[in-house]
Amino acid sequence: MEECMSALPGSVGAVTPQAFHFEAPLPLQSGASIAGYTLMVETYGSLNADKSNAVLICHALNASHHVAGYYADQPKNIGWWDNMVGPGKPVDTNRFFVIGVNNLGSCFGSTGPMHTNPATGKPYGADFPVVTVEDWVNAQARLADVMGIKQFAAVMGGSLGGMQALAWSILYPDRLQNCVVIASTPKLSAQNIAFNDVARQAILTDPDFHGGDFYAHGVVPRRGLRVARMIGHITYLSDDDMAEKFGRDLKSDDYQFGYGVDFEIESYLRYQGDKFSDYFDANTYLLITKALDYFDPARHTDGDLTKALATTKAQFLLASFTTDWRFSPERSREIVKALISNKRTVSYAEIDAPHGHDAFLLDDSRYLNLVAAYFDRIATELKGVSA
Amino acid sequence: MEECMSALPGSVGAVTPQAFHFEAPLPLQSGASIAGYTLMVETYGSLNADKSNAVLICHALNASHHVAGYYADQPKNIGWWDNMVGPGKPVDTNRFFVIGVNNLGSCFGSTGPMHTNPATGKPYGADFPVVTVEDWVNAQARLADVMGIKQFAAVMGGSLGGMQALAWSILYPDRLQNCVVIASTPKLSAQNIAFNDVARQAILTDPDFHGGDFYAHGVVPRRGLRVARMIGHITYLSDDDMAEKFGRDLKSDDYQFGYGVDFEIESYLRYQGDKFSDYFDANTYLLITKALDYFDPARHTDGDLTKALATTKAQFLLASFTTDWRFSPERSREIVKALISNKRTVSYAEIDAPHGHDAFLLDDSRYLNLVAAYFDRIATELKGVSA
Repeated sequence: MEECMSALPGSVGAVTPQAFHFEAPLPLQSGASIAGYTLMVETYGSLNADKSNAVLICHALNASHHVAGYYADQPKNIGWWDNMVGPGKPVDTNRFFVIGVNNLGSCFGSTGPMHTNPATGKPYGADFPVVTVEDWVNAQARLADVMGIKQFAAVMGGSLGGMQALAWSILYPDRLQNCVVIASTPKLSAQNIAFNDVARQAILTDPDFHGGDFYAHGVVPRRGLRVARMIGHITYLSDDDMAEKFGRDLKSDDYQFGYGVDFEIESYLRYQGDKFSDYFDANTYLLITKALDYFDPARHTDGDLTKALATTKAQFLLASFTTDWRFSPERSREIVKALISNKRTVSYAEIDAPHGHDAFLLDDSRYLNLVAAYFDRIATELKGVSA
Repeated sequence: MEECMSALPGSVGAVTPQAFHFEAPLPLQSGASIAGYTLMVETYGSLNADKSNAVLICHALNASHHVAGYYADQPKNIGWWDNMVGPGKPVDTNRFFVIGVNNLGSCFGSTGPMHTNPATGKPYGADFPVVTVEDWVNAQARLADVMGIKQFAAVMGGSLGGMQALAWSILYPDRLQNCVVIASTPKLSAQNIAFNDVARQAILTDPDFHGGDFYAHGVVPRRGLRVARMIGHITYLSDDDMAEKFGRDLKSDDYQFGYGVDFEIESYLRYQGDKFSDYFDANTYLLITKALDYFDPARHTDGDLTKALATTKAQFLLASFTTDWRFSPERSREIVKALISNKRTVSYAEIDAPHGHDAFLLDDSRYLNLVAAYFDRIATELKGVSA
């Protein structure tokens, strides 16, 4: 792997996922529990002697444990945050031991709806228990236990990943030094939930969904997944960015006066929908959107986010993007305000970027430099790190 | 009818639609033409002696010729702009002769996809020619000819109806004194088109759509229509209004941890989708969204809206609503700016209203008073009107 790293400066090189199996039942927020489950994990960099340099990266809706690098047999399969994590990158794997973990219920190797339900001997399907952000965090904490990590240097994520980081700071205040929450929100708005529910309805009403048991029927609810992804994708991009990239550009010279493709934006969205329906699991889409909808740490403090964050101990970095209308800067500011009311140390940046919600995944030097500077500070504060 | 009017002050009372049949083929922008078609029409008030007090009301996506009043056998079936049109209302039927017309291709009585294609003897289905805003305006002009109306006191509409009013001012500059364009846009943005295309894809991929020939199969693509309407509905409301009306309110005491209804907003949207799929035609949805996508009067003037509006002669009233993110005030301002560059007389109001795009249909005293004042001015300028 060292050779690959030198061959590809800035990349962690070829990586290999590991499966961690957990026999003990994990109690879930719903009251159900799940036993005998597997989490798929990737790590980059080396854990230092006192195990103080670990960084946990939490993923959003359609990502996975494959955060950085590539697979030897799939050189084009690059990790989803490869611009953020690697040697010399903002989260520098020369200094940090970085962990990516695929969440329970996802469809990239960790136990999910397509796996066998031990109670029935058949795939879980829609019976896979609805899991929450807090459930995922509890599962991640067990993984940390197994890895011997008592406290993370940082827990970090964007969007739904940022919710997990925030939940870590509430549920396990002593287990993270820093909490990095990017393009996230303390809870979904009615409009956010509305978009998620339309997407779910498209899947649930697809005749090929078969109540979630489509595996047994040898079909996939592609139509529903495709529409769901198209809706989602619109909310990930900014209006301005779409106007800039596609505008009213036509695929052909003139209007077609039919229901094929007229505009480039149609072609792009349909392609995104088709691609997504090739690889994503419909039951996973349902349960992950539910985890998004349910996240609301202030729900048990009468809507008071300051109270909900009162037990946190970490230092915080938050970042938002001006054109993100899915989770707008205002939502990040609510978190910042609640943390400041609790006298927490908070760094916050509102980054002027044209790319909407997706900006958290893209190259933007101000954004990447901000994260780099924050992790530089963490690195210098670490004991036993060879800087 | 006079008795009904006095029984229900402010309402035009019970109304009866009329069918106007046109034998001569109407040439369409696509190059196709349609012959032997019917337009459903309602009128309110009386045409004056010199036929100068006629006001044409153009409808948006899911509305019709039924603008005001009710049907004697359906007293709850109130016209869609009944708060705007009636005796003593902003468009005062004591002074104006108001015409509502259902557009070609719609599903409320005018010739549309569910009617028999004379060429095949079967319903048109998806073969109904794709019509444009300009085609509708040409059909409306023929109706005006038959009614003996050479010039309208005003042509008026909101949203897609506003596009028709604007197209009137370009295509028939001598046939309208005033053009009233509310909550509209000179063209759809990439994001607008994207939402329309996802909705169309939901319908087109519904197995019950049968390529548009679902009539012959005795089914309706309800799943697709339902999802299409849910998507549309999200774009009609403002984020703030949804937050205010629904927030994160639950239907029950707690999360359900399943895929039924958790949140009030889900219940509301699904209800809207169900209701819509009961009455709206899927082929009509497709073609009306295409008419929206295609509207772009500056397309043949190299994108220069000022040039596109150079031949207009009408006086203009435009209004937009601050929280309308479908057709934002900025889009109305583009029209205003282009009109002013052409030295047209323009009144423009940006109304601070919380209800998003739907505000153009709702009661808001500033908005209704604005329109009332504008039509007062028109009335005083009319010759031969008994004021």
